[in-house]
Amino acid sequence: MSELRQNLITRDWVIIATDRAKRPDQFANPKKSIAQLPSHSPDCPFCVGNEEDGTLETFRLGDDGTGWKVRAIGNKYPALSPTAEWMRISSGIHRTMAGIGVHEVIVEHPRHNLTTALFTIAEVTDILLVYRKRYLEIRKYPHIETIIIFKNHGESAGTSLEHPHSQIAATPVVPSLFRSRIDAAIRYFDDTGECLFCRTLEDELASGERVIFETEHFVAFIPYAALSPFHIWIFPRRHSSSFDDIFDAEITDLAYILKTVLAKLYYGLNDPDYNYNIRSIPTTEQGTKYFHWYMAIIPRVSKQAGFELGSGMFINTALPEQSAQFLRSIAIPSNCNF
Amino acid sequence: MSELRQNLITRDWVIIATDRAKRPDQFANPKKSIAQLPSHSPDCPFCVGNEEDGTLETFRLGDDGTGWKVRAIGNKYPALSPTAEWMRISSGIHRTMAGIGVHEVIVEHPRHNLTTALFTIAEVTDILLVYRKRYLEIRKYPHIETIIIFKNHGESAGTSLEHPHSQIAATPVVPSLFRSRIDAAIRYFDDTGECLFCRTLEDELASGERVIFETEHFVAFIPYAALSPFHIWIFPRRHSSSFDDIFDAEITDLAYILKTVLAKLYYGLNDPDYNYNIRSIPTTEQGTKYFHWYMAIIPRVSKQAGFELGSGMFINTALPEQSAQFLRSIAIPSNCNF
Repeated sequence: MSELRQNLITRDWVIIATDRAKRPDQFANPKKSIAQLPSHSPDCPFCVGNEEDGTLETFRLGDDGTGWKVRAIGNKYPALSPTAEWMRISSGIHRTMAGIGVHEVIVEHPRHNLTTALFTIAEVTDILLVYRKRYLEIRKYPHIETIIIFKNHGESAGTSLEHPHSQIAATPVVPSLFRSRIDAAIRYFDDTGECLFCRTLEDELASGERVIFETEHFVAFIPYAALSPFHIWIFPRRHSSSFDDIFDAEITDLAYILKTVLAKLYYGLNDPDYNYNIRSIPTTEQGTKYFHWYMAIIPRVSKQAGFELGSGMFINTALPEQSAQFLRSIAIPSNCNF
Repeated sequence: MSELRQNLITRDWVIIATDRAKRPDQFANPKKSIAQLPSHSPDCPFCVGNEEDGTLETFRLGDDGTGWKVRAIGNKYPALSPTAEWMRISSGIHRTMAGIGVHEVIVEHPRHNLTTALFTIAEVTDILLVYRKRYLEIRKYPHIETIIIFKNHGESAGTSLEHPHSQIAATPVVPSLFRSRIDAAIRYFDDTGECLFCRTLEDELASGERVIFETEHFVAFIPYAALSPFHIWIFPRRHSSSFDDIFDAEITDLAYILKTVLAKLYYGLNDPDYNYNIRSIPTTEQGTKYFHWYMAIIPRVSKQAGFELGSGMFINTALPEQSAQFLRSIAIPSNCNF
């Protein structure tokens, strides 16, 4: 018997197909983990020694003679560019706009064969600090509406480069996905006077069965209507609608919970491919009471097929409560850089 | 320089990244095609001789002693079941519903190593007739809101079974994706008095640059703001909001255009993996003036990565006009079963 669950934040209905459910460990990655790669790769554009590859460096953290720690650079093949000329045409039913915006790469570490799960908390903190630094700067650019920070880890998550890196994209439109979620959040706020995200967090903490890990400022849990196996949300406890509003103490704490959750995935599912992203309110609508920024982690352990593409609904073959219990039970080795 | 285009039907903004654009033939499938498989596989549950696999057959076409042509059977691992007991609970922010609905497999042909591109028009017609037959029947089941017909061709399209087959799923909810598209269609209809899909079709025919192939009753084209390379829509010329309303003459004609377009993909891109789906208005809202049923074909030649998952926007590395021109130029061998 399968069960449908609605995610009130996304308004998606998900089919939790328990008949097809696998045991949590059956989602483990059958491939080699990133740690088995060389620590330096001469052909890698992000490795030390290859910084002069023609891309513009927009920020560098740590350059006291011991070398850089984190770099922000322009994407070599940017989907959006800040130097594009402004253009917006509406002709009949066709609407076209210049590909204006920002598309940067954050090179997370000088070493080639590391990943967030294996970084020290200090190293993850540095990456998050660069995210905030660039977010605050990019916000000021003209025509920017939405800033998305994201990471593609592994081939099935859409990256061809092994070196640890993430990306920041800033778009000149509010994506329709954001609009529909904001609409749902406003409707809930108008009906109840409270933030739907704060409400969700309270409910998850009260039940506890889908919580993976919690820290002073953050809670990581599997949503009640998770779209796919091990789909994880990290919510800040403090209501805030935009990531760049994060305090320093919260950054260190976010580094701790992010590393912990990713290490649980790394050891529990053998370094699965995943995407993560940080979603905030559009930059011109900051400070709202109804929207709450959050981080989503989507391990790529299942495929979207015709049903998902055709209906926009998802079939999840893992029970969210069971996945959360599995991740809670995963112990992280004591030599894992804490 | 990239360009943003809005798809008014989906309201999605797509980044057409011409800087990263590949030549059309660079999207070709590097793997073997389905024709290189055996024509019968003893272990395949859909092959002749394995009909008694425990799944319920709901319809069989052709049984005049020469064997079946097309079969509709229950999915062995159904995501939704018509025998589930009705249940709908709303508790706080959590909403749960029984996994009631239908999930059937259409076994398209007795032979193992064929695919729609290589079928005869008569064979594709038979498949479409079974789609309509089952659609009309499933519509009558209780609690059904939306019926989606879809096909997963190849491993990256999400199928593990090689034997030619497609699926029908009927859900007890209207997926949020459908709701938002219907809302956009209603808004356009209220503003202009016309169907947005009819308008799109007229515009595409007038420009012609994205049209791939047209027949008496149908037009196949690449949408102006195609989400991914070779993303194709087939629209009926006659306004109708639901697939099951199709006339017999239109079915034969749809078989012809579908086979032609899939054969162009087969020969032009070496049998790429793809999904197709047929989208109709929810079953309880048939006969509307604002919604138009259509068929979408999505070759799996690119991957959704963190940007797409995070923003809900898409980056298309192929220019729709160029992809359409490429497919127009692909000649189908004369021995291709016409």
